[in-house]
Amino acid sequence: MPELRKDPIIGRWVIISTERSKRPTDFHLEPEKPDTKACPFCAGNESKTPSEIFAFRSPHSQKDGGGWEVRVIPNKYPALRIEGDLGKMGVGLYDRMNGIGAHEVIIEGPDHFKSLEDLPIDVISKVFETYKIRMLDLSRDNRFRYTLVFKNVGEHAGASLSHPHSQLIATPITPKRVSEELRGAQEYYTYKDRCVFCDILREEQNQVTRVVYENDGFIGFCPFASRFPFEVWVMPKRHSPDYTSLEINEMELLADIMKQVLGKLSKALQRPQYNYVIHTAPIRWPRKGYWSTIDYDFHWHIEIMPRLTRVAGFEWGTGFYINPTVPEEAAKYLQELKV
Amino acid sequence: MPELRKDPIIGRWVIISTERSKRPTDFHLEPEKPDTKACPFCAGNESKTPSEIFAFRSPHSQKDGGGWEVRVIPNKYPALRIEGDLGKMGVGLYDRMNGIGAHEVIIEGPDHFKSLEDLPIDVISKVFETYKIRMLDLSRDNRFRYTLVFKNVGEHAGASLSHPHSQLIATPITPKRVSEELRGAQEYYTYKDRCVFCDILREEQNQVTRVVYENDGFIGFCPFASRFPFEVWVMPKRHSPDYTSLEINEMELLADIMKQVLGKLSKALQRPQYNYVIHTAPIRWPRKGYWSTIDYDFHWHIEIMPRLTRVAGFEWGTGFYINPTVPEEAAKYLQELKV
Repeated sequence: MPELRKDPIIGRWVIISTERSKRPTDFHLEPEKPDTKACPFCAGNESKTPSEIFAFRSPHSQKDGGGWEVRVIPNKYPALRIEGDLGKMGVGLYDRMNGIGAHEVIIEGPDHFKSLEDLPIDVISKVFETYKIRMLDLSRDNRFRYTLVFKNVGEHAGASLSHPHSQLIATPITPKRVSEELRGAQEYYTYKDRCVFCDILREEQNQVTRVVYENDGFIGFCPFASRFPFEVWVMPKRHSPDYTSLEINEMELLADIMKQVLGKLSKALQRPQYNYVIHTAPIRWPRKGYWSTIDYDFHWHIEIMPRLTRVAGFEWGTGFYINPTVPEEAAKYLQELKV
Repeated sequence: MPELRKDPIIGRWVIISTERSKRPTDFHLEPEKPDTKACPFCAGNESKTPSEIFAFRSPHSQKDGGGWEVRVIPNKYPALRIEGDLGKMGVGLYDRMNGIGAHEVIIEGPDHFKSLEDLPIDVISKVFETYKIRMLDLSRDNRFRYTLVFKNVGEHAGASLSHPHSQLIATPITPKRVSEELRGAQEYYTYKDRCVFCDILREEQNQVTRVVYENDGFIGFCPFASRFPFEVWVMPKRHSPDYTSLEINEMELLADIMKQVLGKLSKALQRPQYNYVIHTAPIRWPRKGYWSTIDYDFHWHIEIMPRLTRVAGFEWGTGFYINPTVPEEAAKYLQELKV
């Protein structure tokens, strides 16, 4: 059973894998060789993965057989385990709990070589719809507090398989970085009586210089204080704290902007390694009542972070970043690029 | 002039390099070829660096000539500039200031191939003494709030040159991660009336299982909630918030434990890439008065982070880490290893 341990100083939680613990000789930074024939996410290899949890598939196709467009499976090497209770306890000074959670893989299509942005809008839509379906399903498990959807592309971005996929992890605690963002948004709201993200959205539309792409539902821009070169945030124009509030027509607009933005990044940076992360409200949060303003102050969005530079001691030590590309220049470049 | 920009949501600052801004084609993740002859940090190549700020050198040797043991120079490509005023201002919704600061390189010896842990104790002592001397000198500049000393070893850890060196950056703001740590320590102190680090120190001495090495002045241990495999913290036994309070005999004990711990890591993991960061109190902080408890609640220390795994979307999105090595097993392995 993996273990969750809490740092007693700043309250950061860490997942410690106690089962297949790595000894010094187990670490190697060399990439594993790609082997398409053996890729467990490819069409025809469905039997190599754990049994599917959900799929968009053609009418008469069989579970764990071919004929699917998007397929969700449990991660074969999960960071957190689904069975068991939380077992919260103290160990001397310290706090720990069992590593309970869900860890799923969303395979974005049967074709190994088609990246998300290469797919047609309606299929991309289904990928984003799948995120919503899985988040809603897991939110019914009352051990969980947060569902994080993220995508690692490329070895430097932490991907161990190159077949296009994203991941979902449901955690029994609200992660620290999420709480920080919620707190920041709430402080702004308390001070100004406005959502900071709605204010950013208007500011970006006014200043124009950092906008990469815009459609009726979304805006994609390089944030003013971008941590990474060519960082892009995609934000819905309709205020909502919660990704799962997305309606079906909005899914298509999201698919459109993600196809555009990822396509532009892919072309500009020659298929860069990157991560994206969906920032959304926690599952179990006091949403009503005079003391909670999350419905008004938080605004879900997606942060896309190309991994072009390395994070070094300075960033780790300070939590502030050195970005060698001016966001306005990155935005201008991406905005002008046609895909 | 580089620019400091603040994220309006969580208050994270970013340094934007506006001078040599990188365009898409400037990014390449391939390592630069090591070229010892051309290494500007090697003995004999002193003229290839900016003029030295400080050095430990033999009695009759000349500034910027040979005969030095430890040498400090300005970084040739500084993240922050020393000249100018802060120029704090708002830009619409956002906040920015000029990228004022200091960025220095501490060259740990004239020999390209001798790592810090390979040097004799008295020379390692001088490296740590140099940190103190430079921190004290920069603390007199009242534009600065924090001096961060860190070391990047290996390309994955962000080092661009392989010659053993560390870096110092003085910043005009207290970095976010430092403030978080200070706040956490203060909250613990308010609750328990004890320093959390002193409590950790006693707990580690009691539990024993995570201790790597100990001498009269310091303890080295794998923290309970280690973020990274083989992460080690080195903590002084004497409570002090401030690295610069180190006395000369303590410098030698610090050199001893760092030689041991880095030597053990080097042997166990075959010269791993790593970062270390000195966590110390800010320069300008209200140290006296009933409302500040920093003298009592904060405790300087060094965090050593081997870079054996990659940080992926999950870590970026949540701020919580997946560590595949149990800290107790890492500690046992390191503790038993003789160097």
